[in-house]
Amino acid sequence: MSDQIKVAVLGYGNLGRGVELAMKQNPDMAFVGVFSRRDPASVKTLTGVPVYHVDQLLEMKDEIDVLILCGGSATDLPVQSPEYAKYFNIVDSFDNHANIPQHFDACDARALEGKKTALISVGWDPGMFSLQRLLGNCILPEGVDYTFWGKGVSQGHSDAVRRIEGVQDAKQYTIPVPEALDRVRSGENPELTTREKHTRECFVVAAPGADQARIENEIKTMPNYFEPYDTTVHFISQEELDRDHSGIPHGGFVIRSGVTGKAGETKQMIEYSLKLESNPEFTSSVLVCCARAVARMNREGFIGAKTIFDVPPAYLSPKSGAELRKALL
Amino acid sequence: MSDQIKVAVLGYGNLGRGVELAMKQNPDMAFVGVFSRRDPASVKTLTGVPVYHVDQLLEMKDEIDVLILCGGSATDLPVQSPEYAKYFNIVDSFDNHANIPQHFDACDARALEGKKTALISVGWDPGMFSLQRLLGNCILPEGVDYTFWGKGVSQGHSDAVRRIEGVQDAKQYTIPVPEALDRVRSGENPELTTREKHTRECFVVAAPGADQARIENEIKTMPNYFEPYDTTVHFISQEELDRDHSGIPHGGFVIRSGVTGKAGETKQMIEYSLKLESNPEFTSSVLVCCARAVARMNREGFIGAKTIFDVPPAYLSPKSGAELRKALL
Repeated sequence: MSDQIKVAVLGYGNLGRGVELAMKQNPDMAFVGVFSRRDPASVKTLTGVPVYHVDQLLEMKDEIDVLILCGGSATDLPVQSPEYAKYFNIVDSFDNHANIPQHFDACDARALEGKKTALISVGWDPGMFSLQRLLGNCILPEGVDYTFWGKGVSQGHSDAVRRIEGVQDAKQYTIPVPEALDRVRSGENPELTTREKHTRECFVVAAPGADQARIENEIKTMPNYFEPYDTTVHFISQEELDRDHSGIPHGGFVIRSGVTGKAGETKQMIEYSLKLESNPEFTSSVLVCCARAVARMNREGFIGAKTIFDVPPAYLSPKSGAELRKALL
Repeated sequence: MSDQIKVAVLGYGNLGRGVELAMKQNPDMAFVGVFSRRDPASVKTLTGVPVYHVDQLLEMKDEIDVLILCGGSATDLPVQSPEYAKYFNIVDSFDNHANIPQHFDACDARALEGKKTALISVGWDPGMFSLQRLLGNCILPEGVDYTFWGKGVSQGHSDAVRRIEGVQDAKQYTIPVPEALDRVRSGENPELTTREKHTRECFVVAAPGADQARIENEIKTMPNYFEPYDTTVHFISQEELDRDHSGIPHGGFVIRSGVTGKAGETKQMIEYSLKLESNPEFTSSVLVCCARAVARMNREGFIGAKTIFDVPPAYLSPKSGAELRKALL
């Protein structure tokens, strides 16, 4: 179909693969291909979509309506998103919260230069969780926000454990504390410390002969990553790790606990939660429907950098306004 | 402040009172007053805002940026929303799902005539629940939608019970079936009948000497309202009803249970829930932030009828884009 939205991906890790799979669930979009820094011949895609070298990206720009950037937030996206925002409508999942304003400005300038639309920081947090925080704040201006993450695998914390000497492999789970969730849901609006909100659980494969007591101590005392939390460390075999901890589940909760009434006497509670068997596949699914929105926003003249806060929700859908009103309103 | 958004209300029942209270939580908006069909001298407002007769509405139109229509969906809004959409930016909570397309078209034509913006059917269902259904469908195109209501008071069902001969007063609660919620949350995607999803519980004050067995039977066999459900009827005194059942709580759950992956092997679950001590106060809070969005949409040239699907979420907030990105993204 010539009116399909033509989508390409830059980067072929977990997110890029997730986009490839999500595209198959969205027949109004066509997958142009994967662009990679690797030798295309060495990249085998899940569904046989073509692979190109990143150097071919600019010369193919007229064949691409939206470029989804699937690199990492640490070093890839801060460079790639502004770079390509001049030439393509882009979507990224930049998730370094503290640097979002700076990333937004960099993408905005470049997108405006090229009259393109750059939708940044979509996924679930930032992304859907941010949207729920915004909605909660707008509806209940008097209230408190709570965001809990997990139970799920934190890639950053797993990496931190793997960098410890004597650790052969590791997976780290972030777990919300049930009592904290219960207190929030009761409407008491507690002030919760970092330690009271989440615990951390590590499954570690120690190298042969490594000192497990030292590893456990290094994990539990690691500043920022583990020291502010109650952390449990389990030593297991590589076989157990591969068998029981190979998934990348995640999820979490956004709660707005607010009040209305003459003197704030009425409690009102909004809760949004995700339970995801695959964090990257869900994030990719968000990226894909956002690609649809970006194509339409650009057609209608909404150029520059945008976030999920700027997207009319209907633009995420392939259905017409009339269809949506009939089926979902 | 001269740049405050000037809001007026038509109708002063539970919703109108809720808007009056919500306005106090939103200092970027100014409350022009309540317009009523009753004699203004007979209407006492909660916070002392002025009351005008509805006949004065048109002559005050230049003093009003947004008119929030707080009438009922059965007879008031089908007439009032199109009527006033030509002269005012309006927000309504029209909640007769089946008639939304027709109501939209009627408001659209009139709003376009007057170059105004008419945001219809906002509140929580339709409204926030609709938005969550839309988001769930866009992110997870392969999936099933579930909406549960309650535990909460259904005004329509309470009224139906009160119309039965021998009933002096009554309150009806709609209650989601916990086992059904559990099955949905487990990801099994069950097909649920009406009876399996919700139960109904009635608290009835029988008139002195009334035949309670007959009343109970009439309730339980009432077509559409109660017959498709398992219904429990409790006879209590007026004192008990007034003491224990005077609130108007409500709430519910929107769940999108979907799959991703190569062959749909990955389960992904999105759940949104509301737990509201006051249904009308929450609905009014939604109406008020929507009034803010309508004022901005109209300033920017987005005229005609709109729904929550068309509103860029940031427009619901008094904060700037940069503030929102920094604080909530």
